[in-house]
Amino acid sequence: MPNILFAARPERWTLYEPHLREALAEAGLAHAVLTTEADPSEVDYIVYAPNGPVTDFTPYTRLKAVLNLWAGVEDVVGNDTLKAPLARMVDYGLTEGMVEWVTGHTLRHHLGMDAHIHGQDGVWRAGIVPPLARDRTVAILGLGALGSGCAAALAGLGFHVTGWSRTPKQIEGVRTEHGPDGLQDILKSAEIVTLLLPDTPATENTLNADTLSLMPRGAVILNPGRGALIDDDALLAALDSGGIGHATLDTFRIEPLPADHPFWAHPKVTVTPHIASETRVESAARVIVENIRRGEAGQPFLHLVDRTLGY
Amino acid sequence: MPNILFAARPERWTLYEPHLREALAEAGLAHAVLTTEADPSEVDYIVYAPNGPVTDFTPYTRLKAVLNLWAGVEDVVGNDTLKAPLARMVDYGLTEGMVEWVTGHTLRHHLGMDAHIHGQDGVWRAGIVPPLARDRTVAILGLGALGSGCAAALAGLGFHVTGWSRTPKQIEGVRTEHGPDGLQDILKSAEIVTLLLPDTPATENTLNADTLSLMPRGAVILNPGRGALIDDDALLAALDSGGIGHATLDTFRIEPLPADHPFWAHPKVTVTPHIASETRVESAARVIVENIRRGEAGQPFLHLVDRTLGY
Repeated sequence: MPNILFAARPERWTLYEPHLREALAEAGLAHAVLTTEADPSEVDYIVYAPNGPVTDFTPYTRLKAVLNLWAGVEDVVGNDTLKAPLARMVDYGLTEGMVEWVTGHTLRHHLGMDAHIHGQDGVWRAGIVPPLARDRTVAILGLGALGSGCAAALAGLGFHVTGWSRTPKQIEGVRTEHGPDGLQDILKSAEIVTLLLPDTPATENTLNADTLSLMPRGAVILNPGRGALIDDDALLAALDSGGIGHATLDTFRIEPLPADHPFWAHPKVTVTPHIASETRVESAARVIVENIRRGEAGQPFLHLVDRTLGY
Repeated sequence: MPNILFAARPERWTLYEPHLREALAEAGLAHAVLTTEADPSEVDYIVYAPNGPVTDFTPYTRLKAVLNLWAGVEDVVGNDTLKAPLARMVDYGLTEGMVEWVTGHTLRHHLGMDAHIHGQDGVWRAGIVPPLARDRTVAILGLGALGSGCAAALAGLGFHVTGWSRTPKQIEGVRTEHGPDGLQDILKSAEIVTLLLPDTPATENTLNADTLSLMPRGAVILNPGRGALIDDDALLAALDSGGIGHATLDTFRIEPLPADHPFWAHPKVTVTPHIASETRVESAARVIVENIRRGEAGQPFLHLVDRTLGY
């Protein structure tokens, strides 16, 4: 009967407790003790947040593992009192959520859904049929885990998918390009473009007045990546001129996006509040519990941090 | 150099001509003669609509095939003057378009997009994160070519997909049920249900007050199938009571849906004008040209009608 100490802020406990109990039951560990207060010498696992109540691991003498709720471990990895294995959060929900958001909004714009969602006025607008996905070119900029997942999902639905990254990448069923010339080439044919580049000095303003002008008239932009990837003023100008048809934006230079930002009021912009890829409590709880199940079964832990390397 | 006579109404010619020429060029048949007027004795292929100008095929002495623009051949199959092979239209665009519409609207409701599309009011609504597709049960009623295609696409995106049909069917990755008890079972867990049953006396009002009441509170209905599958009054009552959360409807008992029908004004209904599965000119043109290419290459025609059977 493992003892599990939940050591994060109280509001996290409210959020996580039911999902951890459900995941424990699913894993055949319904008998485990899950608590926020325990005698340190009897704790087997700590579900841990670096901003929570535990900073000295010395009294936790029988600890089997520390299971971090965060992807980042920089605030705990240097803690010399921690001798037990440390696992980071690698949440499959982050990738799956992103793929669902990008696929959903790509299909929304592909199908022209907004005209129907807004147009419930009794007028039967037949005869306006979108092309098939196979006749629609959609581009993903940035081909890391998130971008590759989105490209594969869109290709699976039949879209003609192109992709761009700084360095060469191969994805089955996707035409990929790299480098500055490759970017121009991809943008020229992209009817719907999704930005999933990392936020670096080299990627800032990847979409600017010059690059936006390369895209087919009326093209759509999805930005679930980083706000700084777009020059906001250039985008607004391109929307006003009709060069760009719509922008659905999930990330911004300042978040929450200020209420007086022109994106909110622009009829060709949809703002979503940085929801494309969030840690889901359900999936994070399952990831935590899978490591407890492994520990109890004598199997190796997943997502272990190499403390000499620091990640 | 094959001579192709286009024998349908003039407005169809306006629509089809550019796409047929493009498909001919793609197929290496840019040199073919495509026309609406020709000496019958020199015509190799007729692109045909039963409501077009040709009813007597006797003068078409060197005809290699008649390529029907319609899926239905009941108005030509009994024509005794037709001796050449007759092919029906089997448009891959019908299935692909349906899969795209169903997948898109399923993701729209799964992600709760409407709240953002309507809610561009400067309020940052963070923290409302939908479950992952793997934690969402979606059901397809009717597992013919269209329903099976939709079920497979949704399963490919990670949804927990269930399916129901009158007789037993197997689809990989989909839990299928059949018969009346199976329908109850499927509806009880379905958060988003898509109707793709055929329109028969047995399927009329498949969703009625009783069956609607089985579904989880707030469930969503998509009907790209047939209007008669739903009892409209029962649906409106379920929407008003909150039992059903939203209905996105593409088919109706009367089309175009009359402007005074309560579906138009209901805030929980989205009407789309029977667009989920339409013959796409692009794909239909490619299907026609593929048969011409086959005829010229001495290969067997696709989608031939057995005139003794009548279909």
